[in-house]
Amino acid sequence: MTRSAPDPARRSERSRTAVLTAAAELVAEVGFARLTIEAIAARAGVGKQTIYRWWPSKGAVVFDAFLAASENASGSLDLPDTGDLAADLRAVLRPTADELADPGFDNTGRALTAEVVTDPALLREYRERLLDPLLEVTRERLRSARESGEIAPDADLDLAVELLYGPMYYRWLHGLGPLDHGYADRLLDAVLRSLRT
Amino acid sequence: MTRSAPDPARRSERSRTAVLTAAAELVAEVGFARLTIEAIAARAGVGKQTIYRWWPSKGAVVFDAFLAASENASGSLDLPDTGDLAADLRAVLRPTADELADPGFDNTGRALTAEVVTDPALLREYRERLLDPLLEVTRERLRSARESGEIAPDADLDLAVELLYGPMYYRWLHGLGPLDHGYADRLLDAVLRSLRT
Repeated sequence: MTRSAPDPARRSERSRTAVLTAAAELVAEVGFARLTIEAIAARAGVGKQTIYRWWPSKGAVVFDAFLAASENASGSLDLPDTGDLAADLRAVLRPTADELADPGFDNTGRALTAEVVTDPALLREYRERLLDPLLEVTRERLRSARESGEIAPDADLDLAVELLYGPMYYRWLHGLGPLDHGYADRLLDAVLRSLRT
Repeated sequence: MTRSAPDPARRSERSRTAVLTAAAELVAEVGFARLTIEAIAARAGVGKQTIYRWWPSKGAVVFDAFLAASENASGSLDLPDTGDLAADLRAVLRPTADELADPGFDNTGRALTAEVVTDPALLREYRERLLDPLLEVTRERLRSARESGEIAPDADLDLAVELLYGPMYYRWLHGLGPLDHGYADRLLDAVLRSLRT
């Protein structure tokens, strides 16, 4: 379908996408503290008013930019079930390590973390849109492994997902060591040893 | 020893302590975002200038307040070595769960986390003064357990400390579930199962 007249809804969606892209690029380049709404507006080619119409704060824009990027890459939320638990979890943990180790992600991830952990409303949204779905597909895969006898019948699945993601997140946030596939694999081995007993 | 003339060094130390106490109380009461230097100065009974002379920002004051409180309670950094690894680690993990579950700590801890993870200089100071010493005494206790055969001879101690502290921190930051002694004990059991194999 072609249109000869401009479509306000489509133009609006284009502006929204431009703002989110600009925010993601800028926070990766200059960090959250030095990011300004002015700079986002300039790079996106929109007025500051356009941004303030949709988002109450710089934190809210960055947060939405991060969620949009994560949701676009949401193939990672389909945790496979090949019958080999180690292989399936490795397929999530290795890309997670890659993402956390990516310097382009680092600033954004830290800015997002700072916003999310100090703002209960943002934390709720982050959990609903991103974290809880990830934890739930992981628990679901572990549940299936528990039923097939790959892990202990009394394995605590809430604890198990925290053991899988918590140490890597802790290492990343505090800069404790490299985040590579070797680390992801050692972490996974350790957690599986614990779950199999 | 009594003095009849005022002692500037002592008065200065008294002001510093008053500022740190006021900052710790206020951040717990109102959260970091709504905390102001004015409010800290008013409660501490000092001028704003006194605060700005010693600290460049609100974040720096809160950070120092947190470190001062942690260093005062630094008995927890003496990790016992009774020969019973589970008992010794339980003596650290249970109080850690208590601290994270304390509503009075929660705001301060979140504000501190937000500052630390987005400011490389603060992260360095946090690691040097607080995190690295904690991780090192824990590694030291695990090293002794490795030598006595309580855990596997090839246990990865860097990973082990992340397995001990990471999941609890992850649960706390994201509000994933209760932080009580039962949780601390289940976490510890899981990590020890992994280390013993």
